[in-house]
Amino acid sequence: MHLLPTSSPPSLVRQLVSALISPSSSLLRPLHPPVSLLSRRPLTASTLPMPDGDDSLLRKALADKLATIQAQANAVRQLKASGAPKSDIDAAVQSLNALKLDKASLETQLLQSATNNRDAFRQALVNTLERRLFYMPSFKIYRGVAGLYDYGPPGCAVKSNVLAFWRQHFVLEENMLEVDCPCVTPEIVLKASGHVEKFTDLMVKDEKTGTCYRADHLLKDYCKDKLEKDLTITAEKAAELKHVLALLDDLSAEELGAKIKEYGITAPDTKNHLSDPYPFNLMFQTSIGPSGLSPGYMRPETAQGIFVNFKDLYYYNGNKLPFAAAQIGQAFRNEISPRQGLLRVREFTLAEIEHFVDPQDKSHPKFSEIASLKFLMFPREGQMSGQSAERLQIGEAVAKGIVNNETLGYFIGRVYLFLTRLGIDKERLRFRQHLANEMAHYAADCWDAEIECSYGWIECVGIADRSAYDLCAHSDKSGVALVAQEKYSEPREVEKLVIAPVKKELGLAFKGNQKMVTEALEVMDEKVALQMKADLESKGEVEFYICCLGKNVTVKKSMVSISKEKKKEHQRVFTPSVIEPSFGIGRIIYCLFEHAFYTRPSKAGDEQLNVFRFPPLVAPIKCTVFPLVQNQQYEEVAKFISKSLTAAGISHKIDITGTSIGKRYARTDELGVPFAVTVDSTSSVTIRERDSKDQIRVNMENVAAVVKEVTDGQSTWDGILKAYPLHSSGSVDEE
Amino acid sequence: MHLLPTSSPPSLVRQLVSALISPSSSLLRPLHPPVSLLSRRPLTASTLPMPDGDDSLLRKALADKLATIQAQANAVRQLKASGAPKSDIDAAVQSLNALKLDKASLETQLLQSATNNRDAFRQALVNTLERRLFYMPSFKIYRGVAGLYDYGPPGCAVKSNVLAFWRQHFVLEENMLEVDCPCVTPEIVLKASGHVEKFTDLMVKDEKTGTCYRADHLLKDYCKDKLEKDLTITAEKAAELKHVLALLDDLSAEELGAKIKEYGITAPDTKNHLSDPYPFNLMFQTSIGPSGLSPGYMRPETAQGIFVNFKDLYYYNGNKLPFAAAQIGQAFRNEISPRQGLLRVREFTLAEIEHFVDPQDKSHPKFSEIASLKFLMFPREGQMSGQSAERLQIGEAVAKGIVNNETLGYFIGRVYLFLTRLGIDKERLRFRQHLANEMAHYAADCWDAEIECSYGWIECVGIADRSAYDLCAHSDKSGVALVAQEKYSEPREVEKLVIAPVKKELGLAFKGNQKMVTEALEVMDEKVALQMKADLESKGEVEFYICCLGKNVTVKKSMVSISKEKKKEHQRVFTPSVIEPSFGIGRIIYCLFEHAFYTRPSKAGDEQLNVFRFPPLVAPIKCTVFPLVQNQQYEEVAKFISKSLTAAGISHKIDITGTSIGKRYARTDELGVPFAVTVDSTSSVTIRERDSKDQIRVNMENVAAVVKEVTDGQSTWDGILKAYPLHSSGSVDEE
Repeated sequence: MHLLPTSSPPSLVRQLVSALISPSSSLLRPLHPPVSLLSRRPLTASTLPMPDGDDSLLRKALADKLATIQAQANAVRQLKASGAPKSDIDAAVQSLNALKLDKASLETQLLQSATNNRDAFRQALVNTLERRLFYMPSFKIYRGVAGLYDYGPPGCAVKSNVLAFWRQHFVLEENMLEVDCPCVTPEIVLKASGHVEKFTDLMVKDEKTGTCYRADHLLKDYCKDKLEKDLTITAEKAAELKHVLALLDDLSAEELGAKIKEYGITAPDTKNHLSDPYPFNLMFQTSIGPSGLSPGYMRPETAQGIFVNFKDLYYYNGNKLPFAAAQIGQAFRNEISPRQGLLRVREFTLAEIEHFVDPQDKSHPKFSEIASLKFLMFPREGQMSGQSAERLQIGEAVAKGIVNNETLGYFIGRVYLFLTRLGIDKERLRFRQHLANEMAHYAADCWDAEIECSYGWIECVGIADRSAYDLCAHSDKSGVALVAQEKYSEPREVEKLVIAPVKKELGLAFKGNQKMVTEALEVMDEKVALQMKADLESKGEVEFYICCLGKNVTVKKSMVSISKEKKKEHQRVFTPSVIEPSFGIGRIIYCLFEHAFYTRPSKAGDEQLNVFRFPPLVAPIKCTVFPLVQNQQYEEVAKFISKSLTAAGISHKIDITGTSIGKRYARTDELGVPFAVTVDSTSSVTIRERDSKDQIRVNMENVAAVVKEVTDGQSTWDGILKAYPLHSSGSVDEE
Repeated sequence: MHLLPTSSPPSLVRQLVSALISPSSSLLRPLHPPVSLLSRRPLTASTLPMPDGDDSLLRKALADKLATIQAQANAVRQLKASGAPKSDIDAAVQSLNALKLDKASLETQLLQSATNNRDAFRQALVNTLERRLFYMPSFKIYRGVAGLYDYGPPGCAVKSNVLAFWRQHFVLEENMLEVDCPCVTPEIVLKASGHVEKFTDLMVKDEKTGTCYRADHLLKDYCKDKLEKDLTITAEKAAELKHVLALLDDLSAEELGAKIKEYGITAPDTKNHLSDPYPFNLMFQTSIGPSGLSPGYMRPETAQGIFVNFKDLYYYNGNKLPFAAAQIGQAFRNEISPRQGLLRVREFTLAEIEHFVDPQDKSHPKFSEIASLKFLMFPREGQMSGQSAERLQIGEAVAKGIVNNETLGYFIGRVYLFLTRLGIDKERLRFRQHLANEMAHYAADCWDAEIECSYGWIECVGIADRSAYDLCAHSDKSGVALVAQEKYSEPREVEKLVIAPVKKELGLAFKGNQKMVTEALEVMDEKVALQMKADLESKGEVEFYICCLGKNVTVKKSMVSISKEKKKEHQRVFTPSVIEPSFGIGRIIYCLFEHAFYTRPSKAGDEQLNVFRFPPLVAPIKCTVFPLVQNQQYEEVAKFISKSLTAAGISHKIDITGTSIGKRYARTDELGVPFAVTVDSTSSVTIRERDSKDQIRVNMENVAAVVKEVTDGQSTWDGILKAYPLHSSGSVDEE
């Protein structure tokens, strides 16, 4: 079985850099899945203010102040260079220092303002989402369960649109083999994957009440709180706290416990003492069948279902590589103390792709189709040297070796297209490469699609080249070879290591232990074997550690023959590498909600109205139909249009209440419905676009066709505007 | 909280009738859901032979024999009537008896042949399904887990097509409110629904090995085995065994245990003694959060997620009834010993609708749209009197009161359309009404859509009018009123019961117990209160049982005033009834596989080829594209067509192997692909339909449009044939 990364602890510099940009690391992280989605990385709030914030005056003042400081610094330098009197220089320096103090104060205000804007924005958004049933806490009438949410009608529709588009964009477009495996998973599968042993978080308990907390969260909250609110701490203390924050994810249970003791951290709710930290497995455990003897878990990811089916899928694909398998389904993680709404939940939908490829050829035939895309990338080097994300062309990034290979690059490009077509703002989307200390030892390269929202930059998709790790793990545990073959057109000569233990000699020397020594010799890897060969030749004997005996034995030259021999091979048998794009659907949807949400004043200007600017592709309802006034003729037209929309497969809502048209528009804008049909005559009607509020006039027979054209992507609103003239009518417009 | 049905045990006659048509009953069945899908009813093999069986000669012989018997019986009757000599009559009777023996022998042969056909058919089908990865046992490389299956690529595509069509046919067409709730469910919710207490099967254990069995299965197997194979049993014994089979589902744990002892039934695998039967809860249990103090379960159905959200959904719908909510999702049942492949599994996809309606008005505005549909129905009366299912018009069935109400009838009609459009054979689909002893006491009416397959008639959809049961249960447990209001246009005068305990008197009489007595008086139901009023008036005092004191107290006239008062009411507050169509998606898909599967000889006649006659709507892949021979020009045309199909959103497969075209057709027929495009020129190509093998010639530019037209339901193949002439070419056809 493969082991956890044993790389030496990353240097402090790296850790600090890592912490500044994204306090995370892979060491405490369980083995699989999307190295990224798995990571229990704190979703720190970005220091970037929200785009709609009203801190522009502060920003302007800060920019002015920086310019003044620059000028004053130049003035000081000139004074010094020109040998001006000390008193003049001192005065200028004093003035410079005063300016710097002003600047610091402005920065603090800006930070505060950004935080306030962010909190206010998020509150407005979440209120709207919960009030309109996009989502709500599950089992609310029983006071809910932390970390479990229901999608209500509009949220559920957005989710099913996102998943349908995912199927279209990935499964159909790339001819992937989609599978559907159960959530209930027997223990042996998750032992092989490493989850039973390693899928843990460190937990502490309130010693009196038994309430559980994540140890790293408590320490983090303590440090951040001190740094933000305690004005009395010394510079040294501040540096120490920052250092702790940087190291947070690399601390062992003992180290975490020591820090908690040292700082006197107690249970937040009761101030009681806390237990020592200990690992808590995050899988929901259960028992399969009635005997109670078959432990099982609710899968923490969907990927394992694909790996265990590799052999059948490879056969299904005509024993050819590369191919991709995909799965959409529920996954479960029994978080210790879930927070941050939809971003950290106990049950969620994952959509995962496992693209199996020959490790010797990771090119991709369709790479050229996405090679010219240019978007925000944040390579490892940039992160280490403190730069920010930069706009790179994915083709160049692969050519320069920034991205490990074409297939990985291809998926990064496809993910970019997927997310931006859903409505994710491309200015708030970046692909961040994992730092060396974040990656599992077996991973070749790993990039997270991070989306900026009010909680900061959130990893929403992980795209990892996991090499052969997963297939090897299941091969080892199950004894079933999960390999691919490449048949050579003609046989090739290869050099092979041959280890031949001499059983007779071994038997004489080790008696009952002979078998164990023999097996240990046979499974030596090439490097160890060649070293032994050299040592045996030079010294005649060598000490050899036998794991299952727990001790060294002395192996003599007569006991084993080690040689390299030439052989003819007709095919190459190898374990494929797997490139895994893994999508946290709930996180993507939450970020989409944030990017789509805005407010605008009502026509009377007396209130702010909420709008979601969902693209038609994801909008929960594509169209509403309103009779302008309550009147049987208009109602009949509305019903005719409703029928034709249903026949065209367009989800819509008909609203025949007598509410004012302005209020009806506001209601529908708040659900992100892109088009509203208002029936104001018995022949033609108006269609209004949500964001521009533009209206066109269309014959009632053509409504379904126009709406279909613009919602299924055949045309855009701008395209439609060319065919139908703009219509303006005070009575029909907002009130 | 509501209790289990307390109806008196059904009469033996009813039980026997019930057992003959479908050995099932509701008494051992947990409360909710689809009263039907929940039922752990044995899926008995139908005695109807498979349609493709080769028992036609036997059937012919049997029909001839019956005719001869009829004639002979007439002859006997005539002889008797004409006063023929006794010897003549005796001879004729002897001859009649001999004929009857022949008939019995033919019937046995036919039954045997039907069983063999059925087994052979099922084996061929399952082999094909597993070989082509429609589905396979989950975690196969670890030797699998009973009752867990994966859908491979074609199965997964069929499933997602079925679900997409379900959404279109129900959610979109009826403007239902779709929700998406977690599988992890806290205990309190499932206590309210009754699952924690009642969702059980009776289990026995092998006393030595601990292996678990379903007690009723063992007893059933024993009885059936005896009846079928033991020729020595007496007629009395046979009658007894049949009686036990009839009663099977109504036996208590004690009765089951007694029978197992009496018959000396032992563990099937070891012949060891068995434990007494005891109830085993079928829910997968787990623990929510890290404390271990919050028990939870994996939901056994999706319906509860809708019920607990009723209040919000009602609000979302503008506080108006009727409306329907829907949910698609995984459900879990930890079966004791799953058998019958995809029909009895431990994890499965349910699609459930909860249609909330005013109990005083269960009409449906769209009922007329389906009222003229005519299909096989099996009403309660027909079952009780031993008739078979009959073709009824749903409109009439509702009008005659056979179906309880319009809304229930509307959904029966819609389910009929749904299933037959998927490709379920309408001759092998029936709607069976639950017998009185199968229904929960609160249910108003209940019909199962049963589909006939090689396992017999399988309940695939349950359509139940569950009255107010579920909302009441959650109201009671949560303390949150789950009710609807009907505002009156003008206030109405109603008579209300008013119970006013006189606290002073009660305090004097009961001291510390005063509060409990007061509360008990206040919650009396109308009948009890009016009886008390009458008794107090006639006798001056009355004995009154106080639950929480566990004893009677004496209530005097001075202690409570009971009266009926007239009040004006402005609205009616009531708990809505719920009509619940609940779909077992996996069962529907399995039955669809059976109905779609057939074999036909290859062109050379040397083998039988497998075909699935899936309608385009559900076919896993809509179209294949083959270049007739390996040739770069043809490959380019194939790629052009492939691109245009992708752009049109049509799932397809391109096969550029050099395999013979006949083999490629056979491969694609076996996946149920309805259309194959063969590229045999660089301008036009042929499109071949799977079942008729008809071919038409189409310009390469038009291929995507033609395939789209005929796969998305705008046109049929027959319609297409009118526009494009039939094409015949030996070289392109099967080989």
